[in-house]
Amino acid sequence: MSSAYHRKKQPERVRSQLLEVAARLSLEQGIAALTLDAVSQAAGVSKGGLLHHFPNKLALLDGLFDELVARFDRAIEEAMAADKVEKGRFTRAYLTVCFALDQGAEGQGWQALTIALIAEPHLKARWRAWVARRAAEFATTDSSPDCLLARFAADGVWLADLIRSHELDASTRAAMLEKLKALSLA
Amino acid sequence: MSSAYHRKKQPERVRSQLLEVAARLSLEQGIAALTLDAVSQAAGVSKGGLLHHFPNKLALLDGLFDELVARFDRAIEEAMAADKVEKGRFTRAYLTVCFALDQGAEGQGWQALTIALIAEPHLKARWRAWVARRAAEFATTDSSPDCLLARFAADGVWLADLIRSHELDASTRAAMLEKLKALSLA
Repeated sequence: MSSAYHRKKQPERVRSQLLEVAARLSLEQGIAALTLDAVSQAAGVSKGGLLHHFPNKLALLDGLFDELVARFDRAIEEAMAADKVEKGRFTRAYLTVCFALDQGAEGQGWQALTIALIAEPHLKARWRAWVARRAAEFATTDSSPDCLLARFAADGVWLADLIRSHELDASTRAAMLEKLKALSLA
Repeated sequence: MSSAYHRKKQPERVRSQLLEVAARLSLEQGIAALTLDAVSQAAGVSKGGLLHHFPNKLALLDGLFDELVARFDRAIEEAMAADKVEKGRFTRAYLTVCFALDQGAEGQGWQALTIALIAEPHLKARWRAWVARRAAEFATTDSSPDCLLARFAADGVWLADLIRSHELDASTRAAMLEKLKALSLA
């Protein structure tokens, strides 16, 4: 690789590293306790270097949110691409992704952050925009009350996984997923 | 009322007032931005007076959590008392309370806080304990997969109301509640 390549990529790598560290600290200590100083120290990046990417805490939270939504979108697109039935396809993909959260994917730690992020007032609005955009995009295939209900149940399971509020055995979990997928076709 | 009564009650009143202010500030600015100084100033209570009730930010968050759970428990007990059918009674009460969140009850503002609170690591553990205790308490009447699924859907609706992520019209909402109540009896 040329050094020009390195020069171009380096800032992106620092940015990713800062987000990884911010995610880890948020998970360990809660988002309320997260400070730019702590991220800068734990990442071994100067405060100036951090401020170049994230001028304040809100910008850092925005960055975490963007990354989470991008991962979620990619996972949904993959699941949709593997499903040949048009009716309820978005809902089944949504179910698949939400139910997969406990599978120990590398993204799991990150996803546990979602709950803290969407509690932040300005990120709530951004999540609302995502929901509205997707609802409009898939209105012809996924707007039935049963599809909506299935997605709400998926949100509940996702929430339970994130906060580890329930101990669900694998068979109960699989039965629930099948039942909800059937609703998407009703 | 005697002055002895006043002396006894005054600290409780200050505590409630501090919690109200902390809840309002958390909703306005997010829990991450909440500081003891801001609560003390907004409540017109000295920093010493605040520290007497809440020695640090975690204690303040614990206090908010206790209050929220107490309100949630009372609402569930009321709903259960009004339901004569034993099977799935806890689930129907849970559904009723979760779906009522958008009804503009005085507790609504407070409940919007729940999502921020359960994202805090040590409060997650407290919520998990609540779920486990209730699941054990109502194991004979409310442990079917359908009851569980109904409660997950209620969590999803509750989450949607809290973060205002979906615009649900009243008839869709009512139909969903009826469908989920029917599941609790299946």
